[in-house]
Amino acid sequence: MSRELDSVLLDELRALLGERASAARSIREHHGKDESYYPYAPPDAVVFPHSTEEVREVVKLCRRRATPVIAFGAGTSLEGHVLAIRGGVSIDLSQMNRILEVREEDLDATVQAGVTRKQLNEHIRHSGLMFPVDPGADATLGGMAATRASGTNAVRYGTMRENVLALTVVLADGRVIRTSRRSRKSAAGYDLTRLFVGSEGTLGIITEVTVRLYAVPEAMSAAVCSFADMGGAVSTVIQTLQSGIPVARSEALCATTLRAINAYSKCDYREQPTLFLEFHGSRSAVEEQARLVQDIARERGGMDFEWATRPEDRTRLWNARHQAYFACLQLRPGARSVSTDVCVPISRLAECIAETSNDIAKASMPIPLFGHVGDGNFHCVILVRPGNEADLAEAKAFNDRLVERALAMEGTCTGEHGIGFGKMGALENELGEAVDLMRAIKRALDPGNLMNPGKVVQLRDSGPRS
Amino acid sequence: MSRELDSVLLDELRALLGERASAARSIREHHGKDESYYPYAPPDAVVFPHSTEEVREVVKLCRRRATPVIAFGAGTSLEGHVLAIRGGVSIDLSQMNRILEVREEDLDATVQAGVTRKQLNEHIRHSGLMFPVDPGADATLGGMAATRASGTNAVRYGTMRENVLALTVVLADGRVIRTSRRSRKSAAGYDLTRLFVGSEGTLGIITEVTVRLYAVPEAMSAAVCSFADMGGAVSTVIQTLQSGIPVARSEALCATTLRAINAYSKCDYREQPTLFLEFHGSRSAVEEQARLVQDIARERGGMDFEWATRPEDRTRLWNARHQAYFACLQLRPGARSVSTDVCVPISRLAECIAETSNDIAKASMPIPLFGHVGDGNFHCVILVRPGNEADLAEAKAFNDRLVERALAMEGTCTGEHGIGFGKMGALENELGEAVDLMRAIKRALDPGNLMNPGKVVQLRDSGPRS
Repeated sequence: MSRELDSVLLDELRALLGERASAARSIREHHGKDESYYPYAPPDAVVFPHSTEEVREVVKLCRRRATPVIAFGAGTSLEGHVLAIRGGVSIDLSQMNRILEVREEDLDATVQAGVTRKQLNEHIRHSGLMFPVDPGADATLGGMAATRASGTNAVRYGTMRENVLALTVVLADGRVIRTSRRSRKSAAGYDLTRLFVGSEGTLGIITEVTVRLYAVPEAMSAAVCSFADMGGAVSTVIQTLQSGIPVARSEALCATTLRAINAYSKCDYREQPTLFLEFHGSRSAVEEQARLVQDIARERGGMDFEWATRPEDRTRLWNARHQAYFACLQLRPGARSVSTDVCVPISRLAECIAETSNDIAKASMPIPLFGHVGDGNFHCVILVRPGNEADLAEAKAFNDRLVERALAMEGTCTGEHGIGFGKMGALENELGEAVDLMRAIKRALDPGNLMNPGKVVQLRDSGPRS
Repeated sequence: MSRELDSVLLDELRALLGERASAARSIREHHGKDESYYPYAPPDAVVFPHSTEEVREVVKLCRRRATPVIAFGAGTSLEGHVLAIRGGVSIDLSQMNRILEVREEDLDATVQAGVTRKQLNEHIRHSGLMFPVDPGADATLGGMAATRASGTNAVRYGTMRENVLALTVVLADGRVIRTSRRSRKSAAGYDLTRLFVGSEGTLGIITEVTVRLYAVPEAMSAAVCSFADMGGAVSTVIQTLQSGIPVARSEALCATTLRAINAYSKCDYREQPTLFLEFHGSRSAVEEQARLVQDIARERGGMDFEWATRPEDRTRLWNARHQAYFACLQLRPGARSVSTDVCVPISRLAECIAETSNDIAKASMPIPLFGHVGDGNFHCVILVRPGNEADLAEAKAFNDRLVERALAMEGTCTGEHGIGFGKMGALENELGEAVDLMRAIKRALDPGNLMNPGKVVQLRDSGPRS
């Protein structure tokens, strides 16, 4: 892991990129970790390309030396995606942060992979457009595409799966492809765009992303609604969806999460099971949706909505929600987290959350629970003390039970965080022989197993430097 | 093409399926054609399985004899997808027409591949749910998944890409996989569902499809609006989309198409460039959307909306639209059609249609134009006399120019019909080296090139019986 990089390769990378190729310890260490609890695994070197062409040259040089390459965005993944578990070169795309083109008439934009979601939204702020996909962290769009990220708006606007129109990708053999043209739909051959969305850097390096944009709705209105129990909150969302009410955001948070948010973001929400809701549309449509959902909530023990209609109040509310993960970490100072990410059909969600809450009640550590209930997706943040084996064992067992529960309900082990190397076993349990197909695709596209090896699928031949 | 099937294989198929395996000439001929103008290419035998297990056994038997298999649904494809150009066995899935499960609470349904879209909608009629994807023909859901079909509702509800949750697929080696669990979203590994959606039977045989359903909106209202020219109709739709108005359907039709529809469906629409529109939502939302779009249309020379609010009037209107293709065929009795299918970014759509209309004006045959302008997708139905080489040459040249025009505008050669074998060259022009990736995937999943060979991608090694 800490073995030195082939000195010829390092010289070649330096000849190509100058100071933007580094084997300095501090830089390597920064690129050997993400937001997960997994042990650090630093790469042997880090490069900071500025263009697709430079990424291509790096990939070619590494290939010639049979050295793995690992794409790195903001380092906010949660399943060890960016850890250099077999050494190699981390390709940090954060300096590829140019917004290449915003086409207001087409409601789309093309950006370099290192542009973050907030950067894009800031850039288009005055155009009347928005990009809705919003994982908790201010991740890069390349990283979000690579992990098939979603967030609070997915129930209305979809995930990266629905919102990426085309990608530029550097393949394992150094070729550069564009996966699709820019039209809204296409039936032109295999869906390469969707193949790379969620491939976690194992099939190629995404260097440019074309995403859909949306007209900012005439009216947007957010509300907070507290419930006596989590069941009332969840069933309110389910009934809302089944009624066809196009809610834009519908997040449920447990009492523990509210306590964490109040402390971290200096808020004073009622510390009870709570829904954060948002409605988008014309002024009258938003009023109508809100009235209907309020009626549904009231029947399920919901209290009156507390409204956040002014832009600054809405921003404050959603900032608090986006920081929930970081707020929860503070519930146990110094803790790291094992984050769960199951997603189930909505008819099973109430049951899945109820059983999980029972499990939480028995745990020795605080385990806040919150999530995108409109998608059937929720997270538990299991707070473990670093280095404490008992904590980690308890957390893993809790997560294993949760994944098993979700699979038994026809759900998935991961709604939005991805497989990384943390969930490769769960993936096998989830999809069985279909994983062999993923292996076949991986082998076909990356025969040398140099693109982020040891992630998503375990190859029987475990590849170079294993 | 007409060579006899390996008699051992035919015996084996008969032993497996009895009378549901046939080499009768009339049955073979029926399975050697689709709605395209391509020369018939009958398979050597046809089988009618009733289960995934039977499909699997057929695939295994054919594989042992190195015999191609071609999936066949309703036979309504438009690019020669189902033609047995290298002989082999046509697997007709139309008797796999059971609706396996409708889960109203989850807004999804699982059906066998031979269920048609109308059959599904009829089945769920009293549940308050609907399945919106609607190509012109009453295609099977397996065929629609395999060709990544869309239709008039795609602008609001997406195409098969967005509406398939999971597939059961028989692979080339006879294994059966399920591509995904049933949750609304998942980040569990490579997106196998989207890989098979649009793969046109070349990577496996889809035997079961799980699709999303939607709550029938409280109000649905359709309208017809005539314009002095096509430009006004198209720019009305573009302005509607750019304003974020969630129109449910927005179809533009040229005057020639209206003439054909009036004659075929006994209607009396004004024979001018026309928009067929539909609005879905609450009663007040529908009223508001309609008012806004009417204002936009009026500014662009649109006449007053003629409303179709009663269910029977709406049905009549959309039946007329769905039959537009068949209506157009009657403009030239006995004609077959070369159907075009380009799709461009909406900012280029008006220009693309204007240039194409100029080309139509120069043609020797009638060429009606209509389509899903909200997606940037439109069709020309080029009416050619069967066996007339001059007609066909003119039609192909027209289509080549149109595809070239769309590609120059960052569009695609096919918005929804697919590649088949008719557009393999256009696919290369459209995506360049990315097509090599498709070839690599094809080889990895179907090393013997037995799954619908000679479609989507041309392999350099052209496979068995070429």
